Parts: sequence; structure tokens; C-alpha cells
Amino acid sequence: MRRFRLAVVTGSLGASVLAGFAHRPVVCQESVAPVACSMVAPGCRLIDGKAIAAQIRKEVKEQSADLLRETGVQPGLAVVLVGDRTDSSTYVRMKKRAADEVGFHSVDCKFTERVTEQELIECIRSLNADAKVHGILVQLPLPRHINEARVLEEIRVDKDVDGFSAANIGNMCLRGGKPPLAVPCTPAGCVELLQRSNIEVRGKDVVVLGRSNIVGMPVAHLLQSMDATVTVCHSRTVDLPSHVRRADIVIAAIGNAEMVKGDWLKPGCVVIDVGVNSKPSSTDKRGYVLVGDVDFEEAIQKASAITPVPGGVGPMTIAMLLKNTLNLARHSAGLARLPLRSTPTRH
Amino acid sequence: MRRFRLAVVTGSLGASVLAGFAHRPVVCQESVAPVACSMVAPGCRLIDGKAIAAQIRKEVKEQSADLLRETGVQPGLAVVLVGDRTDSSTYVRMKKRAADEVGFHSVDCKFTERVTEQELIECIRSLNADAKVHGILVQLPLPRHINEARVLEEIRVDKDVDGFSAANIGNMCLRGGKPPLAVPCTPAGCVELLQRSNIEVRGKDVVVLGRSNIVGMPVAHLLQSMDATVTVCHSRTVDLPSHVRRADIVIAAIGNAEMVKGDWLKPGCVVIDVGVNSKPSSTDKRGYVLVGDVDFEEAIQKASAITPVPGGVGPMTIAMLLKNTLNLARHSAGLARLPLRSTPTRH
Repeated sequence: MRRFRLAVVTGSLGASVLAGFAHRPVVCQESVAPVACSMVAPGCRLIDGKAIAAQIRKEVKEQSADLLRETGVQPGLAVVLVGDRTDSSTYVRMKKRAADEVGFHSVDCKFTERVTEQELIECIRSLNADAKVHGILVQLPLPRHINEARVLEEIRVDKDVDGFSAANIGNMCLRGGKPPLAVPCTPAGCVELLQRSNIEVRGKDVVVLGRSNIVGMPVAHLLQSMDATVTVCHSRTVDLPSHVRRADIVIAAIGNAEMVKGDWLKPGCVVIDVGVNSKPSSTDKRGYVLVGDVDFEEAIQKASAITPVPGGVGPMTIAMLLKNTLNLARHSAGLARLPLRSTPTRH
Repeated sequence: MRRFRLAVVTGSLGASVLAGFAHRPVVCQESVAPVACSMVAPGCRLIDGKAIAAQIRKEVKEQSADLLRETGVQPGLAVVLVGDRTDSSTYVRMKKRAADEVGFHSVDCKFTERVTEQELIECIRSLNADAKVHGILVQLPLPRHINEARVLEEIRVDKDVDGFSAANIGNMCLRGGKPPLAVPCTPAGCVELLQRSNIEVRGKDVVVLGRSNIVGMPVAHLLQSMDATVTVCHSRTVDLPSHVRRADIVIAAIGNAEMVKGDWLKPGCVVIDVGVNSKPSSTDKRGYVLVGDVDFEEAIQKASAITPVPGGVGPMTIAMLLKNTLNLARHSAGLARLPLRSTPTRH
């Protein structure tokens, strides 16, 4: 995948590295938290989500220890899992492991497929009342006999660690009011990737592909609040390539393998690829490989920076979940949210 | 202002009128509620907000009488006014008159500038508890010693007739969840103007100028939910004209007199001008005239349809306030919202 590893960084991204750091990450900037970066093609650097996520988890661990020492509050994350879907169980295990690693209190609520809606609601209510729990995450999807919306609505807004409640979404969209208590994890991860890679957002033309509740819509708002000019494209957009061609920053979240081609991209643009799609492969022993929404091999010939799939946005989601939990714990202790780098300026 | 009055309607707008209806409104479509329309230049029709708002008020009056007859519920609107600002008093008087005309129950709460925050909060609480009141409107701005946000937060979400609460905004932005109980009046008015003028939104490129909580942000969401591809421009946008030039529909809400020039517009585009700005005039006896954010005389040479200022978006705001009140009354009676034409399809 990483065919080229020349450390020639374009000036437009404000990075300053010396040439020659092939095959190992380099620190792009010393003025901020160190960021791993390597080149994938001449003029195109890789935005290493794995390394940035590890850095965030390290910060969360330190800040969590500080909080415990100073206030006696240990951040607590509750995860509700229903049934035995392999993917859900894997996610939940990864989340739990990540929470343990940063020293969080962890609560698991497991139910069989036969759980009733009322039982789930009662579980949420008891977690709402549990002072040791600051964030409640219900792993979706729930079985079909359960009304998901009704269950999720039970989560108290100050424990809505995913930031998906109407009140948190509304406060994210409204300028100048209350800041949201939590911002959806994947969009916050995209913003953090840009910020920690020192990519300027202000005044830039951003094209978001996809208008989902969990990625497209919130990421568009976050970037707009950071003074980007944002266009949201979707399945009904006429002439998608023409929109992408004028974008300084492309956020792809459409779930369509390698749909965005190299000739759709403006030279020097930045690509954040949220898509995770499986693609049949005769050379991979699993019979498939994971690819993004953007054709990576083509894109690196045009972009100045790009996230890989896997290893780009993916690892950021859990890192931001931990950050959200820490912030809700701080909120419960009467402390302000940390000046997270993903928190946009509010006017 | 209406220099040309030729009834030549462009086919792209789907209207079918015969030529020759100079100097009087014509019905553009018979299949839907009649819409007044006249030509302001060859190929450019005027979107007559005054006529459309009158039609909506007529509908609200009828539907309100139906509701009263069928359920005994008379829609009730409470308006809270503090101080004696001329503009606020005028607005409130207009709102009250409009509410009376459609047969609403009306409650006035007037306070002097010296009112305390606690007194206002207690007023809101008593209106929240008043079963005859379905919508509560606090006329802004409030005096500086009052925390506006704290007062507004007291309004129960099912009486938030302006649709500005975080929960209503969040539900407007989230796809597929609960619909908002009310949608902000001016944005809803813009959508209704487009719909009642049979202007197709789906698949169109829309450029919204301005990102305010009360116009830009919500109108962008409404149009996106109707399958437009929306770009939100603002003070930090680089090269505003280049964005406007690719727009099929321009929504201008920047508060800058005649800023948008004719050569910014794509031939055949539709212009919804939300701006109301005063411009010095030596010929007008008041010494000023009201103009929009778009240079009207230039725009009518390029656009296929346009709203005038005044008489375009302005009259729609109060009409939509009445519609919101009626819908909240229906909600209180356990009835579904009316299939308002401004209600976008939810997926």
C-alpha cells in the first residue's frame, strides 16, 4: 500500500521534516503533541490514525489519573451488549480493553437476544443512577423486537457518551449556546486527525460525502464551526466528481469501496477516508481486504495528505469514546471540559 | 421595482401560464393550492410572499376551526414582551393581530425593563402549566441584565413555538428519528415559498449565505433533508461569488444590503432573499428604502424566480409561527402534525 516513502512534505501543510525518513514515522511538528507522519508518495504524507489514537489514549490515561488524584473521580464507562453478534462482541471487547488500559471503571451489561425492551430500559435507568458510571454506550444494532430509539432516549444526556441525543446534536449545531456535553466519536476523530496533522481548516472548501447521523452530518457541523465552507453531498447529488474536484479537504463517508477516484481530486487536497469496505482479494488469505471509500493508490498521486484504511479514522473512534467518557466524568465533578483539540471554537 | 410584467414563465420551473397577464397575479398551477405569481423581467417570475403567506393564514384559520370543532382545542399563543423597544412592540402587535385573525387564544405577558430574571422564569413556568397555551414566544432581545438562554431554556419543548430549543434543532438535524415539534419559522417559510412555487429542490445545488441559528443553519438542514446538495457560506468563505455562481437556488441571509450582484448568479437560478436592510434614499420620504441581500434589479436579469424585499420572506415568518402554534395544539390533542408542505420527507 505504501508504495512510496519519500519524506518530501508539501509546504502548504505547514509541516517541516527533513528528507530521508523512509520506513519510519517522523515527528512533523515540535510545537504541538508529536504526530507520526510518513510519506506514501512524492508530496503525499500519510495521516497515521493508529499513532495519533495511541497518543490520545496516552493523554486520556494521564488526565484520568490526574482527575482521580485531584477529585477522587474515576471515569466510568458502561457498555450494554445484547445477543452474540460477532462484530458487536468484537467491538465491545476492544472498547472494554481500551477503557481498562486508560484506567477507567468499567461496567458490562450483557443480555441474550430474548431480553425485553423493559429490561433494557431498567438497565439504562440503573446505570443513569449509578454515580460511578459517566458514560453509557448501547452497542447497536439491537434485536428487531426492541425499539432502539426508545432505549437510547432513556440515557441521561450527561451520560450520552456517543453524543447522539437530540439535545447534544442540537447544542453542537447551535452557535454560541451551551456546548454539547459529547460530540459523536468518529466525526470528532476526523477533526482531531486534521488538527494533530496541522492541517488548516479555516476558510477551506470542505466536501463531505455522506449525510449520516453518525458521521456526515456532525462532521459537517464541526468543520463549519471551525470556519470551513462545507458542502454535504449524498446519494441524490448530481455530478459528485465536480463537487469533489473543488474540495481542499474531502471527508468520505459513503460506504462504497474505492468509489472516489484519483481524477476526482484537486491536486494537493487532503483526504480523510471514513469508509471501511471489504473487497474480494485472491492474494489475501482471508479472501478479502479492507479498503476505504477512496481509491488509495490513485489518491496518493494527487493528495497532499491522506488517511489509510485500515489505520486511519478507525482507531480514532475508540480513542474519542475514551475522551468523551473522561469529559463526562469531569463534567460530573463540576469541572470544565478539557480544552480538547477537537473542540471547535464557538462564536 | 417590478419593471417588467410579462407573463412568460420559464419551462424549467414547471409552471404553465398563458402570456398576457400583465399587472395582475396569475395562478401558476392548478394541481396545488393556488399561488400568486407575476413576472418582474423576461423569464423571471416574482415569488409573492405576501400572497403565499395570506394563503397559509387562511389555511391555518380553517384548520384551527376544524380542530376546535373536532377536539375542543383552540390553539393558544403566548407572547412575552419586555420593555418598550419600538421594533419589538411592532412585531408583537403584528403577531397578536395575526393570531387573532386566525382565531387563536392569545396571552400577552408584558414587563417593564426592570423585570428580574426570576420573574420572567416564573412567567414561563406558569405558561408551561397553562393548558390553553400551546406556543410560547419570548420576544428578543431581552434587557442585558437577563440571561436570555436561561429564560428560553425554561420553555417546555412541546411549547417551543420558535423551534429553537436544542432538542427541536437536534431532531431537525437527525435523520429518521423523532420529527421536531416545531421548525424555526423563517427557514420553514423559505421552504414553503419554494414548495408553493413548485420549485424542485431535489438534486439541486443550493448555496446558503449565512450560518445563523435562526436562518442559515436550519434552512440548510431542511433543504438537505429534501435531497438538495447544500453548501453553507459565511464570513470566512473564500471567493463567495464562485460558490453562488454554481447555485441552482441561492438563499441569502447575511444582512448586507445588495451584496449579491447579478454577475454572481447562474442564469435561471432561483433567489430567496431573507435579508432586510435599510438603504439611504433621497427619493423616499422616509429617507431610506428596504432592500435585501441581493441586488434585485440586477438579479431579475439572471434569475428565473426571486422573492422581493419587502413582501417575500418577511410575511412568511408570522404565517409559519401560526402554523407552528396550530401544530403544537394538534400535538397536545394527541393528533399528528398536519402534513405541512414545509415538512420535508424524512428517510
